[in-house]
Amino acid sequence: MRALWLEDQQLSFREDLPFPSPGPGEALVKVRLAGICATDLEMVRGYYPFRGVPGHEFVGEIAAPAPDGWQVGQRVVGEINAACGICRECRSGRPRHCEQRTVLGIKGRNGAFAEYLSLPVENLHRVSEEVPDEMAVFTEPLAAALEVLEQVAVLPGDRALVVGAGRLGQLIASVLALTGCDLHVLARSLRQIELLQQRGISVWNPEQVPERSLDLAVEASGSPVGFEIARRSLRPRGTLVLKSTYAGDLTANFSAVVVDEITLVGSRCGPFPPALDLLKKGLVDPRPMIDGRYPLEEGSQAFELSARRGILKVLLTMH
Amino acid sequence: MRALWLEDQQLSFREDLPFPSPGPGEALVKVRLAGICATDLEMVRGYYPFRGVPGHEFVGEIAAPAPDGWQVGQRVVGEINAACGICRECRSGRPRHCEQRTVLGIKGRNGAFAEYLSLPVENLHRVSEEVPDEMAVFTEPLAAALEVLEQVAVLPGDRALVVGAGRLGQLIASVLALTGCDLHVLARSLRQIELLQQRGISVWNPEQVPERSLDLAVEASGSPVGFEIARRSLRPRGTLVLKSTYAGDLTANFSAVVVDEITLVGSRCGPFPPALDLLKKGLVDPRPMIDGRYPLEEGSQAFELSARRGILKVLLTMH
Repeated sequence: MRALWLEDQQLSFREDLPFPSPGPGEALVKVRLAGICATDLEMVRGYYPFRGVPGHEFVGEIAAPAPDGWQVGQRVVGEINAACGICRECRSGRPRHCEQRTVLGIKGRNGAFAEYLSLPVENLHRVSEEVPDEMAVFTEPLAAALEVLEQVAVLPGDRALVVGAGRLGQLIASVLALTGCDLHVLARSLRQIELLQQRGISVWNPEQVPERSLDLAVEASGSPVGFEIARRSLRPRGTLVLKSTYAGDLTANFSAVVVDEITLVGSRCGPFPPALDLLKKGLVDPRPMIDGRYPLEEGSQAFELSARRGILKVLLTMH
Repeated sequence: MRALWLEDQQLSFREDLPFPSPGPGEALVKVRLAGICATDLEMVRGYYPFRGVPGHEFVGEIAAPAPDGWQVGQRVVGEINAACGICRECRSGRPRHCEQRTVLGIKGRNGAFAEYLSLPVENLHRVSEEVPDEMAVFTEPLAAALEVLEQVAVLPGDRALVVGAGRLGQLIASVLALTGCDLHVLARSLRQIELLQQRGISVWNPEQVPERSLDLAVEASGSPVGFEIARRSLRPRGTLVLKSTYAGDLTANFSAVVVDEITLVGSRCGPFPPALDLLKKGLVDPRPMIDGRYPLEEGSQAFELSARRGILKVLLTMH
C-alpha cells in the first residue's frame, strides 16, 4: 500500500508497504484524512526514535468486518494508545498509561499517514454524520485539549492564560473559552492572533501578562521562556498545566513553586467521547485552523509547510 | 533585651536590643524555647536577605495584656505569616500568601531567637497543658508537614516515598505514617535511619526505590538528585509534593512529567490547629529529634551544631 515511511530521520513516500494485518480484536481502517502534529515534526527531527509509518490524527472508515459488530464503511476516529489490558496501569483504570502500550504512529505501531491502519476495536469511536471529515480529523488533538478540563476544575470567572497559540494552544483556548473563564492567550503570529480574535478570545502580548495574579496557566508553547511566563503569571496556589513536552531538560525557578504553593499538572492525551460531542454540537469548529491539504505522495511538502512558523494544521488525503 | 542578630550573614549575640513594641492587635510574647530550622541556616548563608532577629519556631507565653482576652502567662505558639487582612490573597482565604505579609524572623519582622517577640493575636494558638514546651516548639514545622495532607488526599495503602529524612522529612514521615499509607523513607545518616526505624517506618536506600511505581513522593531533601529520584519513583498520574526550596534554579526532565501526567504540588506552611492536636494526642512525638539545647548567648555554637550533617533539631532556651 501507499504510505509515508520514517527511518533515520528521513521521511519518504513508498508504494511497496504491506497492508496492515489486524491482530485479534483489531479492525482494519481505511484512512480518509490525517493531520500533521508537532510530535510528527519532532519525530522527523529525531526527538523520538521511531521507524515506521508516522501519523496519529486521523478519520477513516472500517475497511473489513471487525469484532464487536463494526460495519464496513462506518466512519471512525481512534484513540492512539493501544493498551495491553492486563498490566497494573490498565487494571488501575489508566489504559492511556499502559506500560506495554503501542502508540499509533509513535511507538511500535504503524500510523495514519497510509492508506490503511489497524487499531484495537475498543480504541475506535463512531463519527456522527453531522461531523465532516475536516472536523473529525481534529478529534485526537481536541481530546488532548479537553484533558486539561479532566484534570483541573475551571470555573466561570477564573482568570486563565494559555501560553502559545499553535495547533494545540488554539484548541485548548477553544475548550477553555466554553467554561466561561476569563481567558487570555499569549500568541505570536498574526495568523494565530486573527484566529483567536475571530472567536472573541482575548489576545495578550508578553507585556500584558500580569504577575502573581491568574488562577490557571496552560503552557502550550514548548519553550522554557513560555514556562517562566506561565509560572510568573500565577497567583499563590494557582495551577500550571504543562501541555508541551520539552526536548531535553527544563531549568526553572522551583523555589517560587514551593513558596507560592503552585500546582503543576502534566497533561497529555485526553478523552475522545467529549471531543466528538463538542464537534457534533458545533461548540468547537477547528476548520479555520486548516492551512493546507496535500495528497499522501506529497507528504514531504506537507511536512515542510507544517514546520513553518505560524502554520497551524496541514492535512494529508489518502485516496 | 537579649537576642541573636543577623546582619550581612553575621550572627551575633546582643544584649542591647529594644523590646518589641506590639502594634495594634498584636501581643507581646515571652519566648520560652525556640528551634533552629534549615531556613535559619540558609539565611546565615545569605540565601535570603534578612537583617534582624531570626527564628520562627517557638513556644512562649503572653507577657502583657493583649486584645481578644489573652491572659498574661498563657502558653502559646504562633503562625509565622502576619497578614494584612485586606489584600486579594487575604480576602480570598489565603492569608499565609498575603502579598504584604511580614514573616516572623524571615521577612520584615524580628523573630523568636530573642527574649520577646510580637505577633498579631490572630496568629497565636493556645498550647494545652498536656503538651510540654519540648513538643510545642515543633508546632510550626509539624504544621508544614501537615500541609501535605491538606493538599493531597493520602489513602491507606497508597504507596508513598519521602525523599530526605532531615528535620522536615522526619515530621512528614510521622504525619504520613498516621494515614496508613505504605510508607518508605529515603534516609542518609545513621541517626535519621534509627529515628525512623524506632517508629516502625520503612527505610529505603536509593537502590531500593522502584521506578514508575509509587502513588506519592514527597521531596524533602532540597537536592536536584532527590527531585529526580522522587519523580522517577512515581507511577503515571502520581503526585510529587515539593517541600524543599532550591537555592537557584532546578533542572529536571519535564517531558516525563507531561507524558506520565505527573502532578507536582509546591507545599510550604501549614495549619497550626491540627498540628497542636496531634501533639496533644501524642500521635506525633518529635522530641527524639532534639540533638542539642543551648542558652541564647551560645547561639553561634547552636547554629554550628545545627549545620552539621545528620543533626536534627537544636533548641535555644531564652531565660
